[in-house]
Amino acid sequence: MDVPGASLPTPTVDFQVDPAHYRHWQVSYDGDIAKVVMNVNPDAGLRPGYELKLNSYDLGVDIELADVVRRMRFEHPEVRAVLLTSGNDRAFCAGANIMMLGQSTHAWKVNFCKFTNETRCEIEDATDHSHQVWIAACNGTTAGGGYELALACKAIYLQDDGNSAVSLPEVPLLGVLPGTGGLTRLVDKRKVRRDIADVFSTTAEGVRGQKAAKWGLVDGVFPRSKFDAEVGKHARKFADAAREATGSAPRQGIVLHPLRVEVSGDGLTRKYSSVRLSCDAATRIATLVISGPSEADLDTVKGGAAAIHAAGDANWALRAYRELDDALLHLRVNHLDIGLILVRVEADAGRTIAYDEALLAAAKTDWLAQEIVWMMARTLRRMDLTSRSFFAIGDAGTGWAGNLLEVALASDRFYLLDDEDNVVTLGLSSANWGPLQMSHGQTRLAVRFYGQPDALETLRGVSGTFGPEDADDYGLVTVRLDAIDWEDDTRVAIEERASLSPDALTGMEANLRFPGAENCDSKIFARLTAWQNWIFIRPNATGPEGALTLYGRPERPRFDWKRV
Amino acid sequence: MDVPGASLPTPTVDFQVDPAHYRHWQVSYDGDIAKVVMNVNPDAGLRPGYELKLNSYDLGVDIELADVVRRMRFEHPEVRAVLLTSGNDRAFCAGANIMMLGQSTHAWKVNFCKFTNETRCEIEDATDHSHQVWIAACNGTTAGGGYELALACKAIYLQDDGNSAVSLPEVPLLGVLPGTGGLTRLVDKRKVRRDIADVFSTTAEGVRGQKAAKWGLVDGVFPRSKFDAEVGKHARKFADAAREATGSAPRQGIVLHPLRVEVSGDGLTRKYSSVRLSCDAATRIATLVISGPSEADLDTVKGGAAAIHAAGDANWALRAYRELDDALLHLRVNHLDIGLILVRVEADAGRTIAYDEALLAAAKTDWLAQEIVWMMARTLRRMDLTSRSFFAIGDAGTGWAGNLLEVALASDRFYLLDDEDNVVTLGLSSANWGPLQMSHGQTRLAVRFYGQPDALETLRGVSGTFGPEDADDYGLVTVRLDAIDWEDDTRVAIEERASLSPDALTGMEANLRFPGAENCDSKIFARLTAWQNWIFIRPNATGPEGALTLYGRPERPRFDWKRV
Repeated sequence: MDVPGASLPTPTVDFQVDPAHYRHWQVSYDGDIAKVVMNVNPDAGLRPGYELKLNSYDLGVDIELADVVRRMRFEHPEVRAVLLTSGNDRAFCAGANIMMLGQSTHAWKVNFCKFTNETRCEIEDATDHSHQVWIAACNGTTAGGGYELALACKAIYLQDDGNSAVSLPEVPLLGVLPGTGGLTRLVDKRKVRRDIADVFSTTAEGVRGQKAAKWGLVDGVFPRSKFDAEVGKHARKFADAAREATGSAPRQGIVLHPLRVEVSGDGLTRKYSSVRLSCDAATRIATLVISGPSEADLDTVKGGAAAIHAAGDANWALRAYRELDDALLHLRVNHLDIGLILVRVEADAGRTIAYDEALLAAAKTDWLAQEIVWMMARTLRRMDLTSRSFFAIGDAGTGWAGNLLEVALASDRFYLLDDEDNVVTLGLSSANWGPLQMSHGQTRLAVRFYGQPDALETLRGVSGTFGPEDADDYGLVTVRLDAIDWEDDTRVAIEERASLSPDALTGMEANLRFPGAENCDSKIFARLTAWQNWIFIRPNATGPEGALTLYGRPERPRFDWKRV
Repeated sequence: MDVPGASLPTPTVDFQVDPAHYRHWQVSYDGDIAKVVMNVNPDAGLRPGYELKLNSYDLGVDIELADVVRRMRFEHPEVRAVLLTSGNDRAFCAGANIMMLGQSTHAWKVNFCKFTNETRCEIEDATDHSHQVWIAACNGTTAGGGYELALACKAIYLQDDGNSAVSLPEVPLLGVLPGTGGLTRLVDKRKVRRDIADVFSTTAEGVRGQKAAKWGLVDGVFPRSKFDAEVGKHARKFADAAREATGSAPRQGIVLHPLRVEVSGDGLTRKYSSVRLSCDAATRIATLVISGPSEADLDTVKGGAAAIHAAGDANWALRAYRELDDALLHLRVNHLDIGLILVRVEADAGRTIAYDEALLAAAKTDWLAQEIVWMMARTLRRMDLTSRSFFAIGDAGTGWAGNLLEVALASDRFYLLDDEDNVVTLGLSSANWGPLQMSHGQTRLAVRFYGQPDALETLRGVSGTFGPEDADDYGLVTVRLDAIDWEDDTRVAIEERASLSPDALTGMEANLRFPGAENCDSKIFARLTAWQNWIFIRPNATGPEGALTLYGRPERPRFDWKRV
């Protein structure tokens, strides 16, 4: 199944990092401007077998970057502009490490690309929502994934020194696509003319200086002697503009402590405070249980901004969604064989609604409450984009309301028990109507009822909790079953799902989960990714004579010239 | 490169057919309602090695269907409703023939799917534009591609007889996706709820009767005894409604004669009346020359509706675009190794503009002129969707205006000679501002200037012809070269392009050609197709133990369970 040369061992990946242990990034703060310096340690790859030269990156480098982006929003809310630059004197960033890619399995490459894509989206999310405006100061070669990293920033400045160039050399040098949104951001975000984009994307050596600015590839070009000063001026300008949006009230960050998790010896079970993940290797099915807020958790958010700040990262929503996020990442990368995830939400529906309303009320004026909501939204988007089947299992003991109903709406199906002895309750909160929207900018309710605007209108009038029959009438349930049928019918559905081709399911789910309008993000994940998936397993890229395989060797690739 | 078992010989495919030689379809006319009966001859497959049982289809069947759809618009303009039904007593249509797919090369499968997709879009185009409303009367099994064919119709009626069911069994039975827009049309066109679509698309046996109607999969269910009468009533209703839009003035069709083409003995050169295609097997480069309208052609359209009708299929636009369409199909299917197409337009720019204006003026009131414009639009869309690199080559003797400028705008790059001894002229006509839009509903100019609305506005004020320098200033040219640089620079660019990985280019072009908003069509071609491409070459589908390979055999497929 995997490419020839896919020889690297696949370690269990840990997604938790903290600044004291960064190996590749230096972050410094100066008032409302942060500086993030990429300085990849060539010898500290996540796996052995390759050297991270010229600020090239692997998954480990990107896990740290994701931590930088996220942590800054919670711990340094005073930051309004983030200057992303390089500590390597030759390269801003040479992109994903080619040797690492050439030696990786298809699954590893796909998961690596997806995670890096999500990190780029997090940079845009921080810029747009938190008004922490990321700016790329490209002091050196800015190639492939390096330029794609810059493309995720609000502005790109390029040093004019005869060496610094931006480029997407993937097509001409490697026979693959820029896998981290490069092509899409080129024409859809920066709106570079498509014929110019064509020339640029096939020019291995890239584009330098004024030409890069003229083509719209960068926002400014400055000579080396003035680079820092000019970029600094722009950072100042962006920070000032961002403060117009956020106001100038001082903000005191909170600390994101490491998640506490109990892992079984075989790695199959992960127990967090509010999330439990259990993988069954034999059936290839996992169970993911999320516990809703307690009365004490509810009291905290009811206490408003002061109480929320005092609780810090112990706030239920922040804690539970960080845990959910971590569990999803583990599922994706460390449990490749798990095809179906049964999601159970153990929560009091009424309490979840009250929790949402209190948190969202606080979020109107408090930055931390708002950051927590954005974090919840990002995590749910990670779930939408996870290439596994999700069945929400609404059996006895579960309750689905507000933000936790989103988990069912993000699932491919929702099975609900209708049993008068074990009444499962559901409900809607303000969280369902906008704050937790999908990556293409739509609520999961709007997507669900894309063809039934009347059903959506009816739901708008619904308040409080309701039972399975109403939920079914509203159109929220895929299959409602009584106690007699529950066991057999869900068992058959689960076994059937687990028996289907994992590739066909990946493709099917990607096509069914995002009806309606598209945006740049959804194009990156649903279109660019699919093309990249295809190209990654074509012999022209990864076969013994493929361009990716032979990169860096004296032999020239041999192509099968058939165009399809 | 190709799948194990890809054993079928690949014949040279002829895309020209006529009703006297249909082997799989019966078409009859009764006033303003046409009946199209699918009755596939099991023994008349395009290639040996499989039997077209149960109204399953191959490319040959679809070439005839495409002819039915197109010919009806020109030859039977009186038709307002088209009843699509089956002459097979067990199946409406069982979809693409699995044995044929299982034995086909990857390239053949991809080209087959693309052509059938385009035919489905032509059915929607005929319904929406020509007000020839296609209606599916599903009398029997409507499975996979059969249901996808029905999905292309305005309405779907299903017989309620305990046997007739609609289904998309590709994922559960074959480990591939419904490859002809099924998933996208399900959630994006019919707007079926995504969780219901998930259940439906994994239920091999499909859905019958009232449940199919309740789930929104069909528009009506009638018992066998009343089926013809009920469907007939609906057809009458649709025809009457369509006539509201078209008016009741009688329409006299024209005849589409076979295209006249001179083919060289080796098949590498095709000479039509206004189009010349020459393929060079050694360099893998083709030259496609389109000749613009003559003065006589211009006089015809200036003569208005009467003259246009008198000329029939000899009208330049109809003739040249039918020839261009045929040439593109030959390139795609019969010349797989050709990676780059150099397009030259030999035309007088001013005359082309005059031609467009006269044709479009006539199209305001005359159905035939309008049909010709829609045909031009479809052909240009076929070019947008052709997975080959196109360079428009504006050297001495060429002229690029109006509809023929679209050929340059549809190309990946436009090289233009700037030589005072050989002045190449260009120009815009009304044809550039709407009638020839791309499949996602945007003009090629709007796509080109997606990031430069000001440039687009400037162009709106431009009339008459202009030269290379102006064209470059307007942003219409990728590379403008003087006579000294022309030869070398274009040669290097052409050689470079021809040396790149064909797969990477396919993916790159698909991502760069459609910036901006998406619609159902572009999602089908750019997203669904990419996923299908990927799945088609995964061992889980086409490996020796893959689901597609083993379909119909006693062995069960063995999957690599890794989810990516």
